[in-house]
Amino acid sequence: MATVLVSVGATARAAAMDETVVVPPRPLPVPKTVSPELQRLIGSPMNPSWDQHPASAEAWRALVKTYAADIETVLPALMAREKVTIRADRMNGVPVFWVEPETVPSENRGRILLNFHGGAYVFAPGKAGLRDAILLAGRGFRVLSVDYRMAPDAPYPAAIDDAEAVWKAVVARYPAKRVGVFGSSTGGAMTLALVVRAKAHHLPLPGALWAGTPWAQLDKIGDSYFTNDHVDNALVSYDGLLGAAARLYANGHDMADPELSPVNADFAGFPPTLLTTGTRDLFLSNTIRVHRKLKQAGVVSDLNVYEGLSHGDFERDPDLLESREVYGEAAAFFRQMLAR
Amino acid sequence: MATVLVSVGATARAAAMDETVVVPPRPLPVPKTVSPELQRLIGSPMNPSWDQHPASAEAWRALVKTYAADIETVLPALMAREKVTIRADRMNGVPVFWVEPETVPSENRGRILLNFHGGAYVFAPGKAGLRDAILLAGRGFRVLSVDYRMAPDAPYPAAIDDAEAVWKAVVARYPAKRVGVFGSSTGGAMTLALVVRAKAHHLPLPGALWAGTPWAQLDKIGDSYFTNDHVDNALVSYDGLLGAAARLYANGHDMADPELSPVNADFAGFPPTLLTTGTRDLFLSNTIRVHRKLKQAGVVSDLNVYEGLSHGDFERDPDLLESREVYGEAAAFFRQMLAR
Repeated sequence: MATVLVSVGATARAAAMDETVVVPPRPLPVPKTVSPELQRLIGSPMNPSWDQHPASAEAWRALVKTYAADIETVLPALMAREKVTIRADRMNGVPVFWVEPETVPSENRGRILLNFHGGAYVFAPGKAGLRDAILLAGRGFRVLSVDYRMAPDAPYPAAIDDAEAVWKAVVARYPAKRVGVFGSSTGGAMTLALVVRAKAHHLPLPGALWAGTPWAQLDKIGDSYFTNDHVDNALVSYDGLLGAAARLYANGHDMADPELSPVNADFAGFPPTLLTTGTRDLFLSNTIRVHRKLKQAGVVSDLNVYEGLSHGDFERDPDLLESREVYGEAAAFFRQMLAR
Repeated sequence: MATVLVSVGATARAAAMDETVVVPPRPLPVPKTVSPELQRLIGSPMNPSWDQHPASAEAWRALVKTYAADIETVLPALMAREKVTIRADRMNGVPVFWVEPETVPSENRGRILLNFHGGAYVFAPGKAGLRDAILLAGRGFRVLSVDYRMAPDAPYPAAIDDAEAVWKAVVARYPAKRVGVFGSSTGGAMTLALVVRAKAHHLPLPGALWAGTPWAQLDKIGDSYFTNDHVDNALVSYDGLLGAAARLYANGHDMADPELSPVNADFAGFPPTLLTTGTRDLFLSNTIRVHRKLKQAGVVSDLNVYEGLSHGDFERDPDLLESREVYGEAAAFFRQMLAR
């Protein structure tokens, strides 16, 4: 069609700069082009918690506790299935967890993966943050997951300070090129922000990154915050819990700072980076904008957009055919890119 | 956020399989995360022709003629700027155009690019189909563009028969691995369908492909036909000109046939493939579904999703910062992947 529309555009479309299009209401059928399990997830109601706005630090803490307890109930079964063990530790004073598989393939013996969990810089403290780590450990890697400080008690820059402290301890023990760093959502943003910080402080950089649907822009800037509003049935909209958490974390700091919005980073010299998102993801733009900037900076970067996935669906339901592909792809990327 | 929502999902979201979500009406602001020129294009009104349904073959021919005349007015300036010449020829009886740059860099001397234009299997006959070819020729390649037969006069399989006839002539003259094949929209689908046909007939396969926002699924199947309905201001919706053209071309043939919907192809053995789309593209799913299937088949494939682009914007306005990046990326991909 492209051809047709060019000339039509040039002729008939007067420049109406800054016009805001209103998209009419419309039904969104469940696509048949995804697995039956994902169809079920897409067909389920919007996440009812998306527009919660806890009114006080106390109310936030209560919500955090409820969610964490909820997640922890699924962990024993997930650990058993993935055949991994969990061990608490500290590195440079920061609490961490070692998540380790029953057997580590020989190619991965000298490697580790450093993980930052998601949760909007507020949720998933302690073991509640370990699902992504368990899923990568289950694919043959020793994973070190950071239990970084969060809002409301410890807003920016506590989380990234903790990340840097752990990174310093890691590179004192492992060749950096044998270390992969990964995370989803907020964890994806922290993965990128850690490299921003490491570059600034002249620390060694990791061998490879996986940023799954990273929260790369903390404020509401980017096309899919609008195009996928109410299309993504997990996050639903920026204008709820998400925006409230962003303000809580930034705590008055400029959200454009690359440590808070790593899409604004100078990506020169970044390690090879895998990026993952979906057609319904509120963070589609967050993800593809990072990809474009990595490419522009000459960095090896591999973008994968999954049909029908909303934000974080792969972590929400790791049994989806699509989720297994996502984690398999991440493990393959680290196997390919990390030094041995 | 992912972490939070998993457990919430498991707890609060009862499976309501096949529920059709209704997206409320909502304003879509022009994103500031794209070039000023693309902001202007996004801010302009919907393509007013999107819901045309010519009622007869005669009416289609008239519309085709109007559009073609419209496009041809911009060609002389485009040719002059890109410093290319056009020469009509025939190959195995099929009309083609050689589009050639003033100088061909030494690395490209033994290479050519074969191009299929877009236009919904109906539009852009003759020179009106040469914009993409001119833009790649302007980046240092000799391009051979196929003026294949189209609906309503020659529905499926005429177009793909012509493509195969030209391909046979090409591989008789050039080592296939030195030939890249590319096209946008319908031309992207034909690029993929040619490989489907070549595999079936045991012909050599090209060295690399670029499918720009390919019309990979001819019928209305795929998530972004719905999620980006009325978000894409170029195609706007399947339920207009596009669907009508699909029916005209298929002419009763099963649209699921991989020659009409190459997303259904067996992608094993495909050449390295570059794919390009945008966050607002009605063909976002067409593009990313092909990418996933290529990856699943073990094919080298590079997906690029541009912020804010609707379908075919890069061809519609080749002067956009984003369009220059798209064509530059395609040229770089062919330089890297084609044999010399």
